[in-house]
Formats: sequence, structure tokens, C-alpha cells
Amino acid sequence: VSESTTSELLEQFRRGDRRACGRVMSAVEAETDDAGRLLDALFPLTGRAWRIGVTGPPGAGKSTLVAGLAGAFRRTQRTVGIVAVDPTSPFTGGAVLGDRVRMTELFTDSGVFIRSMATRGSMGGLAVRTREVCDVLDAFGQDIIIVETVGVGQMELDVVDAVHSTVVVLVPESGDAIQTLKAGLMEIGDLFCVNKSDREGADRMVMEIEGMLELRPRSDPWVPPVLKTVATAGAGMEELVRVLGSHYEHLVKSQRMLERRIQSIRQEMRRLFDERVIQLAWASDDVSLLFDGLCQEVMAGRSTPYRAAERLMEQIRGAISKGVI
Amino acid sequence: VSESTTSELLEQFRRGDRRACGRVMSAVEAETDDAGRLLDALFPLTGRAWRIGVTGPPGAGKSTLVAGLAGAFRRTQRTVGIVAVDPTSPFTGGAVLGDRVRMTELFTDSGVFIRSMATRGSMGGLAVRTREVCDVLDAFGQDIIIVETVGVGQMELDVVDAVHSTVVVLVPESGDAIQTLKAGLMEIGDLFCVNKSDREGADRMVMEIEGMLELRPRSDPWVPPVLKTVATAGAGMEELVRVLGSHYEHLVKSQRMLERRIQSIRQEMRRLFDERVIQLAWASDDVSLLFDGLCQEVMAGRSTPYRAAERLMEQIRGAISKGVI
Repeated sequence: VSESTTSELLEQFRRGDRRACGRVMSAVEAETDDAGRLLDALFPLTGRAWRIGVTGPPGAGKSTLVAGLAGAFRRTQRTVGIVAVDPTSPFTGGAVLGDRVRMTELFTDSGVFIRSMATRGSMGGLAVRTREVCDVLDAFGQDIIIVETVGVGQMELDVVDAVHSTVVVLVPESGDAIQTLKAGLMEIGDLFCVNKSDREGADRMVMEIEGMLELRPRSDPWVPPVLKTVATAGAGMEELVRVLGSHYEHLVKSQRMLERRIQSIRQEMRRLFDERVIQLAWASDDVSLLFDGLCQEVMAGRSTPYRAAERLMEQIRGAISKGVI
Repeated sequence: VSESTTSELLEQFRRGDRRACGRVMSAVEAETDDAGRLLDALFPLTGRAWRIGVTGPPGAGKSTLVAGLAGAFRRTQRTVGIVAVDPTSPFTGGAVLGDRVRMTELFTDSGVFIRSMATRGSMGGLAVRTREVCDVLDAFGQDIIIVETVGVGQMELDVVDAVHSTVVVLVPESGDAIQTLKAGLMEIGDLFCVNKSDREGADRMVMEIEGMLELRPRSDPWVPPVLKTVATAGAGMEELVRVLGSHYEHLVKSQRMLERRIQSIRQEMRRLFDERVIQLAWASDDVSLLFDGLCQEVMAGRSTPYRAAERLMEQIRGAISKGVI
């Protein structure tokens, strides 16, 4: 990609061109050569959006809840970005027709930007790309960004790490929910939603979650509320928006918003630096040649991966002391 | 941990002491200081076990299937290791009593070693630790290692990468299964099990999976079979063991077993080397100081993480050319 094309794209992006925004996100997601340059140029525009994570097991109604949330935020004139990391979400094309029809309004609203992430590849890579796509939407000026992830057992903790407020969505009949909660969702929720709460067992579920929350070690004065919603009927959505707003205020007042920003910048700087250091270490042909030779030694049983790595380090230290790299 | 304690532990491990094996796995899982030394010492004993991954959505009956498989392998005098990465698995203490009673036999069999992984932390870290725990069981002499992971939407691809044969378990009524398959499970299965196949819709499900498999791009002559099982009743387990055996033969004959071993050693060497290179880069106080300063500049809007990382690289290159590191 030529320098001028990148500049033009940025120019269009800054003018608020939705297609340009989509192209920047695609570049970031595909990790193209100019992705770094684009993110660098957009960085000064980031740090303003409120990022909300919505997670829970499949079938909990997360997407409908996300759509309801987005609608409610839109009614207060705030622009919304939706990032679906959940492959079963209608936003990623994974749901039944009924849901999509219900979401038509969002899809045609110019104040809403919907992006679905390809969930292939390693979790670590996916989490980084998700955060970067959120950065792009943030820079584009979306006031609120909602990230939908599917959380079963092994939660996408890395993705949750990138948001400010996390909503955990459960349904009354999920007997497994308690297991799921034990498995990690309990620790990450700033707010719990018992969705489809017109079904039997909703009140019991609320009590169970509240009981478990009492056992949660607390480093933060915020006590996660447990709400009941019926997202398909819009019930409980106003309360959800109100409580989410309280959490936002709490984050700002307690300086946690600022701490989070510092932490996220440090993480990003560290990641970018580590990436470059590794590139430098592998840049010399000597290292690659030695690596191949050592690999054969390990295969032949004459060395181990651990000793081979130490041998590679000696090579690097030697190259450094000779001023080769 | 003193040198002598580590040597003693290894001595006991090599004599086949189950408690020593448990202690080594705990050290590896907790990433203690001597974990690397232990893995290094055990490395020459690895590379013999056949590693089987069993994955699928919660409630598909994976654990019962794993127990059935383990039992079948035991009847052919092969020792078995079970690694449960699934937090809802009875092996990790996450299931109903009924399942555990059914598994009593395995828990008291000295030819079976069961290990459940704490699934906290990042996915990348979990995948590495899971592979290392498999290495320990491999070195301990388990002939077959079965890794149970929960796969919903975002599959633990990194974990699956560490096994030779992957079984994807589904149930007839999971309408979501098709979505799940589209979301990544389709690509990774060497064998598909429609479990609880005494329920309605099993045959249709088999046909649907077979239909989708025809669309799968194929780099391997192996065509994944789709089996029907009722794991709780043991139905279809013999066929499952037989077909898994064919896959093993295919892996050996087609040299894929050897290729996988080479690939895994290369990956491990690369990971260990990269880890050490990053440690070296951060070893100097100058880098840490500069990092903190740059972080403040970025926060103040006078730089970006990308430019800050470049500046850190200049510092490293400078230190190298001066022979400081």
C-alpha cells in the first residue's frame, strides 16, 4: 500500500466516511503492512469511548440485549459501535432470521457501526485485534463501544481486559450457569443480568448469584448489581442502562478510568516493543541457521529445547558483543 | 527449590512414583523456578504418547465419552493420562454426582492418571501449560493422553494444536451445533461423534455434518468419519476406538506423526528463545526508566505507543552497539 493511499484513507476516515472506517478496521484485522501506521495516526483520537463488554453462554440472549442497549444509548443521542467476537451472534451472521429482523433498525442507523470479528486463529491474537478494532471505532468518534463475546468456561479474559464495564448475561434455566460462574465469569462481571427472567427460576438464580458475589474477594467498593431482563420485550433495559451509567460514574470518580487508560497504554507499548525485539533477534541469518541445526540435534536426542534455547542466547550475546546486531 | 530436592523428585518420578508425577505437574502448572529444569530433564523421555483431544459444547457428554475411551484403552493394557481443561468437566470437579460415581473405576486405577487444569489466566498461557502437563504424563510413560477441552464458538485452537487426533463431540438437539461447527470446530475434527444418538435427530445431524465436511478444504487424504455414540451406555465406543486407531495408523504412515513432532519441537524452541530475548531486552534499568518516561509522554499526548516502541528500540540498538548488553 502506497504512502499516498494510506494518507487518503486517513483523510477520508477523519472526515467521518463510514467506508473508510470499515477499510481501516479491515486493515487492522488482516494485520496488513500499513495497519501499524494507521493505528499510530489514529491513536491521538482514541481514549474517549466508553467500552462495554457483554458476555455469557450461548443462548443467553446476549445479542438481543446488545441490540436493546444500543437502541437505548441511541435514544440519548450517543453514537454506538458494536464489535461481535461471538461467532454465534446474529451480528456475525450466526443467528436465526428473527433476530436479524429485529436488528434491522440498528443496521440502517448511521449512528451505529457494527463490526464482526473473524474468530479464527489464536485467542491472544484475537484479543489484540479486537482491542485495535475498538480503538478504530473510538477514533471514529463512537461514544460507546459494545463488545459481545461468548463466555463458556474458559472466558475470553483477554478481551474483557479491553473494556471498562463488563455485563455477564445468564438465563434462569442454565443449571450449568453456576458451574460457568465458578469457572471464571464471577470474577469479571461488573453487573449481572438474568435474562429471559419471565421464565421459572429467575428469582432463585438472582439469589444464587448474589450469594456467590458475597464470597467474591473485593478490591473495589463497587458491588455488582444483579438485574432481571427480558431483552426480547425490552423489559429491564432502562434499569440496565441506568445501572451501567452508575458504573461509569464510579469508574471516573474512583480514578479507575484513568488507571485503566495508563495500564492499557503500558501494555500496548510493551507488546509493540517485545514484538520488535524478537524481530531483531531473528534478523540475522546466523540465528536461523543455528536454530535449524539445533532443531536437528534435539530431534536426534542429543539436546533438549531448553538447552537449544540457551545456545541460541549465547549466539545472540556473542553477536551483541561483536556489534553484529 | 534446592538442586538436591529437584534431583530427588526426578529420581522418584523416573521410578514411577505417582506422587512425584503429581508434584512435577504442579510445578509445571504453577510455573515455579525449577519447572524449566524439570521439563528439560524429562524431555528425552517424551515423544512416545499418542495424544487425543476431545472437544465440543458443554453438555455434549465429553467427560463420559472420555471415561469410556479411557476404559476401552485400559482393556488393551495401555496406560492412560487424562487432562481436563474443561472447567465443567467432572474430572475438574465440575459435574453432577452421577458422573463421578461412574468414573470411580478410573480414579482408582493405577494405570490411569487424571489431571485437571486450573483454567484461569490467559488462553495462550493455558495452552502452553496444558502441553507441558501432557509432556510430563508422556515422560511418566502414559501410552495415551486424552485432553478434554470445552469448545464453544472460539475453540481452544492452541490446545488442539498440541494433540495428534481430535474428536469433536456433538448432540442431536444442539441446533447451535451447526453454528458451532461453522465457527471453527469443523476444521479441527479428525473424527466427529454425534453423542446421545438415541435421541431424535441423530441421523439428520450425521448427514448435516457429512455435508459440511464435503465442503471442507482438504490438505490431507484422511476423510473425518462421523460416528454415533451413546457414551453413558457404552454404545459405539468400540467403533470409536477402532476408527481412532485408523487415524493413528494414518498419522504414522503418512509421516504426519513425525512432522508434528518436528513442528512441536521447533515451536517450543522458538517460544523459549523469544522469552529469553525479551528478558534480556528488559534487563537494563535504562530501558525500564525510558519506558516509564515514554509512557508519560504518550499519556500527555506528545507521543504514541508506536513511536514510543521505536524509541525503545533505538535505546536497545544503542546499548548493543556500545556493548552494554
